[in-house]
Amino acid sequence: MTDRAETAGTAYEPLTTETLAARLGSVGAITDKLGGDTDHWDVAEVGDGNLNLVFIVRSDRGAVIVKQALPYVRLVGDAWPLPLKRAFFEYHALIRQAARDPGSVPEVYHFDEEQALIVMEFLSPHVILRHKLMAGERIEGLARRMGEFCARTLFRGSDLGMDTAERKADAALFLGNVELCDITENLVFSDPYFDAEMNHHTPGLDPLVASLRADSDLKIAAQELKAAFASNAETMLHGDLHTGSIMVTERETRVIDPEFATYGPMGFDIGMLMANFFMAYYAMPGHIAEEAARREYQEWILGVIGEIWEVFAAEFSRLWRSERRGILYQASLFEDQGDHLGAEQALARRLAHIWRDTLGFAGIEIIRRTLSLAHIAENDRIEDEALRASCEGRGLVLARALAVGRGEFAGMDSVLSLARAIEKRDWA
Amino acid sequence: MTDRAETAGTAYEPLTTETLAARLGSVGAITDKLGGDTDHWDVAEVGDGNLNLVFIVRSDRGAVIVKQALPYVRLVGDAWPLPLKRAFFEYHALIRQAARDPGSVPEVYHFDEEQALIVMEFLSPHVILRHKLMAGERIEGLARRMGEFCARTLFRGSDLGMDTAERKADAALFLGNVELCDITENLVFSDPYFDAEMNHHTPGLDPLVASLRADSDLKIAAQELKAAFASNAETMLHGDLHTGSIMVTERETRVIDPEFATYGPMGFDIGMLMANFFMAYYAMPGHIAEEAARREYQEWILGVIGEIWEVFAAEFSRLWRSERRGILYQASLFEDQGDHLGAEQALARRLAHIWRDTLGFAGIEIIRRTLSLAHIAENDRIEDEALRASCEGRGLVLARALAVGRGEFAGMDSVLSLARAIEKRDWA
Repeated sequence: MTDRAETAGTAYEPLTTETLAARLGSVGAITDKLGGDTDHWDVAEVGDGNLNLVFIVRSDRGAVIVKQALPYVRLVGDAWPLPLKRAFFEYHALIRQAARDPGSVPEVYHFDEEQALIVMEFLSPHVILRHKLMAGERIEGLARRMGEFCARTLFRGSDLGMDTAERKADAALFLGNVELCDITENLVFSDPYFDAEMNHHTPGLDPLVASLRADSDLKIAAQELKAAFASNAETMLHGDLHTGSIMVTERETRVIDPEFATYGPMGFDIGMLMANFFMAYYAMPGHIAEEAARREYQEWILGVIGEIWEVFAAEFSRLWRSERRGILYQASLFEDQGDHLGAEQALARRLAHIWRDTLGFAGIEIIRRTLSLAHIAENDRIEDEALRASCEGRGLVLARALAVGRGEFAGMDSVLSLARAIEKRDWA
Repeated sequence: MTDRAETAGTAYEPLTTETLAARLGSVGAITDKLGGDTDHWDVAEVGDGNLNLVFIVRSDRGAVIVKQALPYVRLVGDAWPLPLKRAFFEYHALIRQAARDPGSVPEVYHFDEEQALIVMEFLSPHVILRHKLMAGERIEGLARRMGEFCARTLFRGSDLGMDTAERKADAALFLGNVELCDITENLVFSDPYFDAEMNHHTPGLDPLVASLRADSDLKIAAQELKAAFASNAETMLHGDLHTGSIMVTERETRVIDPEFATYGPMGFDIGMLMANFFMAYYAMPGHIAEEAARREYQEWILGVIGEIWEVFAAEFSRLWRSERRGILYQASLFEDQGDHLGAEQALARRLAHIWRDTLGFAGIEIIRRTLSLAHIAENDRIEDEALRASCEGRGLVLARALAVGRGEFAGMDSVLSLARAIEKRDWA
């Protein structure tokens, strides 16, 4: 899959549309896909994310994606340096995700650590899920795919499924992803709760922001979840699993961009994912004018949230019963002694633990996407400030309830009922 | 402190009383203590632990301890290999503990990674605490010193006190201590709950052992605590903090042998420590015949347990208020906004979390020291099997209540009352 020898030893240099063909034209893994006639490669830079260079390279034989890290945050420039090694972590996360949930992520053709670049499958005609949500389009199988992805990657990267020496070595490896964890630790868990430099929010939210920053219970919840994120190395997380990290067609769902991968608590990925659907749900008044159509699409979004959890729990349970070969909850203590019910009781408690974390992280993610640096397109594209404030404000109200009350929801129905009640409420 | 150059590059070879002086006689850090007249060094092998070679080396100028790892478990022999690198982890733990709680551990004079040996301060006239407990002797300041040791090492090795990049690097370093963690993971958390090969227990306990192995709630508690031990890298633990890892005089307390060091949950060290005092408490009928004297000494032991927690909580709180400079619960969210009470509320919740873990780990430790491979001398030296079974059995009853009910004790008084009630109960 990788043939580093061909480019190894060359000092890092960012690619350009002009130099790409010459520099990568001798990499077998790429010419296998595009052929060797580099004069006729068509190279376009398409990076619309915040951090990296992304090229589509096409020939008459095929197309590949070339993603290269820059030594700073692209969105901000070299005032915010960011290490190239994030490409290393993205590569390592991608190959693990591919092994744990085959077909879920783009296939990696080539990785060059020195150049911080990954050449991978070009997904077409896939688009970023966030755009489909703003367009009010439905994706067949979306919730099922994401529920399975979470269950398989989170279970199989943990001491439930892995050999523990391997799990510990992997946890140690990903502890090197310090700078990207630092971004999460600051932007997600702390910045929203004080007057941090890069914060910004819709002006109409001022009173709500002041009340959240004065809310000790909420701040403590955020810090308890931060402590879990920073130290509870349960499994390899995607680390940035929002609706901008998912590419879809009408019928297919793929997950991209795991450069924030780190070992952390299972609920982090699922919670972040749910949070982004909740925000899309509340943003719909800014995207679908016709009320009946909007309500119908909003219910579809809530259905996706409910089904993600349902599929996650079912698939996690299936893996618990069939692949529990790690050091935790060994069969020798349960099934081998005829104590099948003990294993089921343990599973129920484990799911309850993940459920509580999931709701907490979901709340924290909504708050940070509304008050901290990186907001979501669904809200940003609402030009009417008062309307945007009402969409974002509803999200914040739900978020606070989820984060502080994460241990007090009996199940998804209660969460969705609360979400609907907040949506119906008049906004002052 | 270390001068590896002098012995570096030499292939590993176990020391003997005959070769030690010749092999270490040119190490400056040692001759500084003993002088260079190696002909008059007196070398005695005194290792009474389960794993390593331990020498006392004396001259007319002083004395040092030389501790060298063997490539197998000394107690078992080369049928149970164990990597030499545990000396590396012991060394790294010792220097961190010395920095975090000065004077708490033996001073390290010299470390040789290749030879897996540490030369350190000879503690004299210190003896292992376990022996003092069997002799019914009291140690002035014991509880205070251990409470402070736990608070300082656990707080200062965590994201509450450390720079997080440094904490993550340290967590990654100690994730390499796989084989010693594996011993803990098996012997402590799993072996007691099924018919594991190395298990042994006093025959009179058979019915109780059968009921514990059939107890789903207890097995689930053990596995939930194992999951926390294996993945919740809150802080650098001593990892084996029992009363055999503490050396004392009448007035001084020092902590030794941190080769099981790993990142894990704070409650693990405190819980293991408390467990060993509880077991000593129940073992006293085997050591102090006179009832009034026995009851008085037993109350002293319970007092030590209570005071360890009290001092731990007070010192942890002091550090929380004065040294909370890590990424968790930053002052920017609390004190800097005038929210001093929020920080105090967060502290109370954090202590409650550690309290719950502590009780759980205490229960698990009592069970493993009674049913798994390594028992405690206080029980082993009771020759009367029926008496021994009653001492051990009482411990098991308390242990089950602590492990399963760890979330349900309002404070230390409830725990000590329960311990006393179990002690008073007739033993069938």
